[in-house]
Amino acid sequence: MWRSSGLSVSYTSLRESNLRSVREAIRGGSYMSHTSGLGKGYLQTNIAILPQAFALDFMRYCQRNPKPCPLTGVSDTGNPIMFTLGRDLDIRTDVPAYCVYRDGVLAETLTDISGLWNEDLVAFALGCSFTFEHALQHAGISLWHIDHNKTVPMFRTNIDTVAAGPFSGKMVVSMRMVAPDRLDDVIAISKAFPMAHGAPIHWGDPNTIGISDASSPDWGDCVPVPGDQVPVFWACGVTPQVAIQQARPPLCITHKPGHMLITDIPEDAEVTVMRSQNRT
Amino acid sequence: MWRSSGLSVSYTSLRESNLRSVREAIRGGSYMSHTSGLGKGYLQTNIAILPQAFALDFMRYCQRNPKPCPLTGVSDTGNPIMFTLGRDLDIRTDVPAYCVYRDGVLAETLTDISGLWNEDLVAFALGCSFTFEHALQHAGISLWHIDHNKTVPMFRTNIDTVAAGPFSGKMVVSMRMVAPDRLDDVIAISKAFPMAHGAPIHWGDPNTIGISDASSPDWGDCVPVPGDQVPVFWACGVTPQVAIQQARPPLCITHKPGHMLITDIPEDAEVTVMRSQNRT
Repeated sequence: MWRSSGLSVSYTSLRESNLRSVREAIRGGSYMSHTSGLGKGYLQTNIAILPQAFALDFMRYCQRNPKPCPLTGVSDTGNPIMFTLGRDLDIRTDVPAYCVYRDGVLAETLTDISGLWNEDLVAFALGCSFTFEHALQHAGISLWHIDHNKTVPMFRTNIDTVAAGPFSGKMVVSMRMVAPDRLDDVIAISKAFPMAHGAPIHWGDPNTIGISDASSPDWGDCVPVPGDQVPVFWACGVTPQVAIQQARPPLCITHKPGHMLITDIPEDAEVTVMRSQNRT
Repeated sequence: MWRSSGLSVSYTSLRESNLRSVREAIRGGSYMSHTSGLGKGYLQTNIAILPQAFALDFMRYCQRNPKPCPLTGVSDTGNPIMFTLGRDLDIRTDVPAYCVYRDGVLAETLTDISGLWNEDLVAFALGCSFTFEHALQHAGISLWHIDHNKTVPMFRTNIDTVAAGPFSGKMVVSMRMVAPDRLDDVIAISKAFPMAHGAPIHWGDPNTIGISDASSPDWGDCVPVPGDQVPVFWACGVTPQVAIQQARPPLCITHKPGHMLITDIPEDAEVTVMRSQNRT
């Protein structure tokens, strides 16, 4: 269902708001757009919700592919409160927009999944690239897609992920162009965030990982590919969505790309688990 | 069953052997003792084997408590080959000694669990402190228990782990005494190994975390506690064993403490997953 919202809140005003206000706007349905730059300093995550029968294999898939699928939180079966990631996070309402897949096919897009949640579902939160992008920016490394308000370009590679049960498929990567003299910094900085895809999986010739045209992404926006910069590729959170579509569970709910769950966990936390948990 | 071994192999001779020879000696039953210092440079892990009905909750427990329970590998249900951790690792034979728990109580100790393995079991590998201890030694930081061939002292704390299903309990920590001028180094070095318990969870007054007498550990050996050194505490791999005993599964098999699985994964790998997997 689309939430019956009151007045809608603008992205610009929310960008200056604190985490509490951002969450209230999302929960109440007055903000339904992307979360880049919102809730500054707090961990944002990809979301996948699956029936319990698929949960063990999906966790194995994440454990075996930690760079595309860094697992930052898992709900109890049937409990919509993600108590390890926040004081009152409710996975039914606290993501701005959701995609609902039935048998692996996109069926609808919603801003509230209270009507779909049931006792058999398990919600998974996976780290996302916003975290290391912020760290790169703090180090003075500019990112073209952010400076130009575009979505990072993403590509399907020729790299097989490690299968688990019905979950398998090629790894998806995101690409950022980096000046050669900052390449070592970029690698070292992102490596320090294993819960946000960690170090890049490849840099240099895109053909090596099966990308024939770096100016034509499979997802996201095109970016310039200047010859004096190095294309750098990170494992991407779209990878598990591809694996889920391949597994064709009867029901799967994900966040709408770019519309992430904003948690109460500081972005630079060593461990993505709240010290005091609220289980209600 | 105890393996029908040929000639037994001494610890001293195995210490100089390569990984292949160490594995063959363990698999063949000619070496049944502790693995500290063996297979130098390769990741060693704690082991827990559980019926599939407990596997999802145990994985959730590990995800929620990543410092005591850093999950480095999970088998397919019923498949004893840990293909993400080695070329031919067989969990039934490749650990020097196992403890078998029935309903949470130690029932027997074996050196081969081929007779117990069945289609319903899932094997979990969890990182261990050997990894960061080696890194500390390389940085010139001496560790008393290693220099004196003792087991590190371990203590039950007053810190609750985050429960998942039937798994819960207090965190167990290991203690190492550190010179004050090396404390910052010790914290930074161990933090770089999240798959080996990461940074310490506490340093200084043991009472703060519920330890009344640092010279009297709950597991392992006593060590001197000199007043000019700082006691430093790390989350410990005994924690999940306590949680498992609390959960009382009908069957659980662990490694015998100190008798670890030695994997094919380099100790300093960013990701504890083999690039090419052998699924046979």
